[in-house]
Amino acid sequence: MQDDNYGKLISSLAKVNDKRICLLVMDGLGDCANGSKGTALQIARKPNMNQLAGQSACGLLLPVGTGITPGSGPGHLGLFGYDPTVYVVGRGVLSALGVEFDLQNRDVAARLNFCTVDAQGNITDRRAGRISDDENRRVIAKIRADLKPPKGVEVFFETEAEHRALLVLRGDTLDDNIGETDPQTTGVPAPRADRPPYNQSRTAKIVAGIIDQVGKILADEKKANFILARGFAKAPNWPLFPERYQLKPAAVAGYPMYRGVARLVGIPVVGQPTTAADVCAGAAKALADHTFVFAHFKYTDKTGEDGDLDGKVRRIEEMDAALPALLAAKPDVLIITGDHSTPPSLKAHSWHPVPVLMAAGHLRGGQAPAFDEVNCRGGEIGTIPSHHLLPLAMAHAEKLEKYGA
Amino acid sequence: MQDDNYGKLISSLAKVNDKRICLLVMDGLGDCANGSKGTALQIARKPNMNQLAGQSACGLLLPVGTGITPGSGPGHLGLFGYDPTVYVVGRGVLSALGVEFDLQNRDVAARLNFCTVDAQGNITDRRAGRISDDENRRVIAKIRADLKPPKGVEVFFETEAEHRALLVLRGDTLDDNIGETDPQTTGVPAPRADRPPYNQSRTAKIVAGIIDQVGKILADEKKANFILARGFAKAPNWPLFPERYQLKPAAVAGYPMYRGVARLVGIPVVGQPTTAADVCAGAAKALADHTFVFAHFKYTDKTGEDGDLDGKVRRIEEMDAALPALLAAKPDVLIITGDHSTPPSLKAHSWHPVPVLMAAGHLRGGQAPAFDEVNCRGGEIGTIPSHHLLPLAMAHAEKLEKYGA
Repeated sequence: MQDDNYGKLISSLAKVNDKRICLLVMDGLGDCANGSKGTALQIARKPNMNQLAGQSACGLLLPVGTGITPGSGPGHLGLFGYDPTVYVVGRGVLSALGVEFDLQNRDVAARLNFCTVDAQGNITDRRAGRISDDENRRVIAKIRADLKPPKGVEVFFETEAEHRALLVLRGDTLDDNIGETDPQTTGVPAPRADRPPYNQSRTAKIVAGIIDQVGKILADEKKANFILARGFAKAPNWPLFPERYQLKPAAVAGYPMYRGVARLVGIPVVGQPTTAADVCAGAAKALADHTFVFAHFKYTDKTGEDGDLDGKVRRIEEMDAALPALLAAKPDVLIITGDHSTPPSLKAHSWHPVPVLMAAGHLRGGQAPAFDEVNCRGGEIGTIPSHHLLPLAMAHAEKLEKYGA
Repeated sequence: MQDDNYGKLISSLAKVNDKRICLLVMDGLGDCANGSKGTALQIARKPNMNQLAGQSACGLLLPVGTGITPGSGPGHLGLFGYDPTVYVVGRGVLSALGVEFDLQNRDVAARLNFCTVDAQGNITDRRAGRISDDENRRVIAKIRADLKPPKGVEVFFETEAEHRALLVLRGDTLDDNIGETDPQTTGVPAPRADRPPYNQSRTAKIVAGIIDQVGKILADEKKANFILARGFAKAPNWPLFPERYQLKPAAVAGYPMYRGVARLVGIPVVGQPTTAADVCAGAAKALADHTFVFAHFKYTDKTGEDGDLDGKVRRIEEMDAALPALLAAKPDVLIITGDHSTPPSLKAHSWHPVPVLMAAGHLRGGQAPAFDEVNCRGGEIGTIPSHHLLPLAMAHAEKLEKYGA
């Protein structure tokens, strides 16, 4: 792990008071210009957000670093104040979060693909013809029924979706020094998990043995007759959010991945709404007895990934219309931002900094006339790393002691 | 100590020339908006600063980090080019600076509170009823008269103000691994300085013995009948300003704390003015034979701490009126900034970045029309850490060699 000097310093200054911070994440919020149309935020009719911008410090967030496109895990860790280049989540752990597997400190997790191999053991399809979720569940059940776990180790197989699954080993003194077995190509056999230099690892031998067993259990399957494993990772052992910031946190999130990232840093989930109206109502409710509420809205990202600009605009307008219910709870600091940008023109996450507004006291003036990527550029916050946002919100909520005399 | 790679690089590039840099610190300069009135800088009539802004690179300084409120020590270290998260000053050292105690390399300093204890030794008042400065001096004199110093160690007791005092030990091989004896609460006895794990420290035993003696010496006092000690710290052994930057520095500062921080980094004090007119005259005089002059003006902070917006505005106007005397000395680079913000609405230091103007050659255009928090936001300097400002001034004064060929 690299240094987390800034985070440690903030942690050493954190103090308790009753003020409440609400972090509303509109997933994938940022956009590019869409030709002459402007960004989704610029196109959307959003009177509430524009009015809020006039009472807010605005700016842009850099989730990981200039030019770097973040995944959902790093994007959210940054918003929770954890530098995502320091607090690195392995792919296996992300898979576990995605299916809400209750990952424990001793566990090692890996992301699995079901694949198809020929009689010689060479891979013919790395995704087993993208089998259905039902097929996936059927094959997982077969493995669970027949697998003999190695002594002293519990083994969990979990369905994700289509050809994707999760493998978790639980036991004492497991390590994650295990060879990835997905060659990322076809026409070759999967390499063994315990090939050199991984043959020093007891856990690599255990994994290789499990994969051998699975090959035999699935031998008569047409499509999903083998597995490929990658992203072996131990559950992280990080400073948890409540202690790190002296905040009493709650998460309101409708999708498993975001609940998982919240739980990973010790933020309990108190609601699972998905629509804009329900997200705002859930956040308002949670603010009654928590000093930090993370509320997640998925559809701005989903429409972006679908290349659906109109849809993204509509989702922003839905959230804008729902905001009064959240504002009625009168959080002392209200942040509206995203975990990354998802421009419909790219149909994917992007590297563009994410617009942010923070409605709070102790502002400086010169507020932005509207909430969008261009107006945020000249705002009071400037362009800062995402993981500096939570400390700034704590400052505005007077939750940080002075540094030095 | 953390890394100081930037500072070391700057130091390796520093070269001597005759150009003169003046750093005018208006303590606690930055502000928030004060509702519709604007910031103190925006309200103040300050034609000279506004005209200077038109010939300046403007920007905002971040003294410690986003959201972090700096004390005066860290605030000034940043302006002197020392990253205050790397160059950390202990509270005992700050107390020593505050009373201009001539701290030496072998010294260990601690901040003392006089307190009141009952017959059982339990603390009943951590501040001894906030005794007067005169009372403090009387009790200090009593301790000085009766204390028997341990062999090989000099012991200094010095009055700060009210219940606050300074303890310094001077001797060979002293350490600062000493337990704080202020429990930060009442109804309990003060813990001993040499309790485990501090019982390995010879210095902790010495301190515990001194505190035992003081308890006996003060036994018949009504209020100040015991002491609490915290913030044990050795005098730092840092690279000094003249060698680090190849500058011939001087400080012009009317208050002990700021003279102390200057001396701590090897900047000699050549004047102690307090009014705006005297500060500018003193700085102008010092510029005659120094290549770096630090001039300190206290009252913009004091009025901020008092919640006195009108007063803060007036102090800015006083300084503006005094500036021509400083400008007449024609410094090659003139910086006007603060060590932190002190918004009257908060009556305290704050985390807000500090406006800065640097009147110098080699500018880019697009200068700010006025010197204030909002106009500085879009200025040529941008928002930078405070400790990057001095190197930037050196660059404009052509005092830094090229890096690499």
